Amino acid sequence: INILEPKMKVPELMKNIDIVNQGESYSLNVSKAKTPKLGKGEVLLKVFSSGINRADIFQSQGKYPPPSGASNILGLEVSGEVIKKSADVHTLNIGDKVCALLSGGGYAEYASAHSELCFLIPENIDKFSASALPEAIFTIWHNIFQLGNLTKNETILIHGGSSGIGTMGIQIAKIFKNRIIVTAGTEEKCEACINLGADEAINYRKNDFLSYIQNNVPTKRVDVILDMVGGEYIEKNIRLLRYNGRLIFIAFINGSKVNIDLLKVMTKKLIITGSTLRSQSLENKIEIAKSIRKNLWPLAKSGHIKPVIDSTYSFTKAMEAHNRMKSGEHIGKILLINK
Amino acid sequence: INILEPKMKVPELMKNIDIVNQGESYSLNVSKAKTPKLGKGEVLLKVFSSGINRADIFQSQGKYPPPSGASNILGLEVSGEVIKKSADVHTLNIGDKVCALLSGGGYAEYASAHSELCFLIPENIDKFSASALPEAIFTIWHNIFQLGNLTKNETILIHGGSSGIGTMGIQIAKIFKNRIIVTAGTEEKCEACINLGADEAINYRKNDFLSYIQNNVPTKRVDVILDMVGGEYIEKNIRLLRYNGRLIFIAFINGSKVNIDLLKVMTKKLIITGSTLRSQSLENKIEIAKSIRKNLWPLAKSGHIKPVIDSTYSFTKAMEAHNRMKSGEHIGKILLINK
Repeated sequence: INILEPKMKVPELMKNIDIVNQGESYSLNVSKAKTPKLGKGEVLLKVFSSGINRADIFQSQGKYPPPSGASNILGLEVSGEVIKKSADVHTLNIGDKVCALLSGGGYAEYASAHSELCFLIPENIDKFSASALPEAIFTIWHNIFQLGNLTKNETILIHGGSSGIGTMGIQIAKIFKNRIIVTAGTEEKCEACINLGADEAINYRKNDFLSYIQNNVPTKRVDVILDMVGGEYIEKNIRLLRYNGRLIFIAFINGSKVNIDLLKVMTKKLIITGSTLRSQSLENKIEIAKSIRKNLWPLAKSGHIKPVIDSTYSFTKAMEAHNRMKSGEHIGKILLINK
Repeated sequence: INILEPKMKVPELMKNIDIVNQGESYSLNVSKAKTPKLGKGEVLLKVFSSGINRADIFQSQGKYPPPSGASNILGLEVSGEVIKKSADVHTLNIGDKVCALLSGGGYAEYASAHSELCFLIPENIDKFSASALPEAIFTIWHNIFQLGNLTKNETILIHGGSSGIGTMGIQIAKIFKNRIIVTAGTEEKCEACINLGADEAINYRKNDFLSYIQNNVPTKRVDVILDMVGGEYIEKNIRLLRYNGRLIFIAFINGSKVNIDLLKVMTKKLIITGSTLRSQSLENKIEIAKSIRKNLWPLAKSGHIKPVIDSTYSFTKAMEAHNRMKSGEHIGKILLINK
């Protein structure tokens, strides 16, 4: 593969975050690793910032190994500057500032990214905050709109409304004129969701979401549910969906093993599905990226979609960033900043 | 509603089959009921034959009440002659011989049917056997092809391959160039499925279908599963599906309450769905009918799709027809003949 020479000198070794004692009591340390080599269609980014995802915690705990071929280094999304590119990349130039979806390798000084999974950072979004966009936008667009086929005027229930994914989901569903109900764990989180555009925010510590919606929401039922909780939510979700409803899983924080009655899946013609981004082929991800470039990126450029940032941690504080996510107190995204 | 006058005299009362002692030990008796009145878009059929469906048994047992507005009389599909029609029906003429999907009322001398759910009987199919087509064709087309999006060269597993639905599914999937695996309960049934075009027929009394497919079928996994069994099949189905696989329920003979792990739904991006015909709106059924008229009816006319008839019973032997279905010994459809 021909690699165009970088303007910036790229060292052979770079700083990265290593997982020490992978398992429940892991820790994260700054270490050195080889700077990534580029494959076909790839660019090398000097990383500004890396978005923290729950998958990073699972990987650190040894529960979520990276797919074959992916970097062992944590980090599924970054923002950065293109400093080197494979000769077959024509859509990006050296010096471009982008954010990118990765299949690993984000917690590092440099990261390789597929050019088709890079997006130019909109002018109104700062170069660090942009790293909060890729995972959330890809996840919301693919699951809610592509798999879930959420249609104008339909009602969507988003569990975990104040998460990085949830805060993005509220904004996008609002733009597409959907009625939005979310669940969240504190009054402060509920308020944040309402401020972002949710029509109803249910504090699940105070109210059972099923009976709350049945008793307080005019529609009583919902068309689409984005679930990252699983466990005892699953049967309630199925009861809450109207005819032709769609239940979409993007995580199972409370577990995926359940005792359920699937009869309503048939009688209500429900669709149960879900996805993880990382398990999808590069071709699939590129297809999703094309659809996002067409349907959503103009909305990020125009300021209608903004990253919601909970907190930022400097590179040496990666473990504190993970602890913040584990605390469950965050609203929006947590970032790891390379400066 | 204007009703065009029939050429044949229609009596006020007609023969029908009544459920006596609805419940587990029900019986079926010939009785008298009012001849149906016609609504907008409907035609009155002098019934030649009525197809027996498992739903009829569930209804007789009191487990499957007819939807509101539907006839209380059993029977979800018939063949018959149009002897009267609502004035707004322009697609059918008095004297046309058709088969029709009903939401009830088939076990009778006369039945009303929506004109859009009637299909002219192809010349190569006799007027009795035609009553075996509607439920099977609608079920297969809607579930496997519309919901399941079965695509050329994909592999489909049909549980209950020798049932009325199964025998139709094999024929249609064959035409659309799919690899077809079925399960059935005897060697004779397996042979019938192979003769209809199945590539593999697994006798589930001799072999576990999951390990059989994993060890003996080159693809090892399947793309689409049509399941009418449920119960312990469900987890096995989920394990057997490849990435992007679809699991579609049309019945739960072994129950719908299960203990399962839904993790693979997310990691393999599966779709779990299903439907019953009767619970769908008239508009939905008409949409399905349009697609069938375009995609499948020409294949019935050309002799590529044929009803597979297990046995026929005269009108007074309805209970024997039900007992035949309950025995599970049938291959193909059981019909109730009005002669």
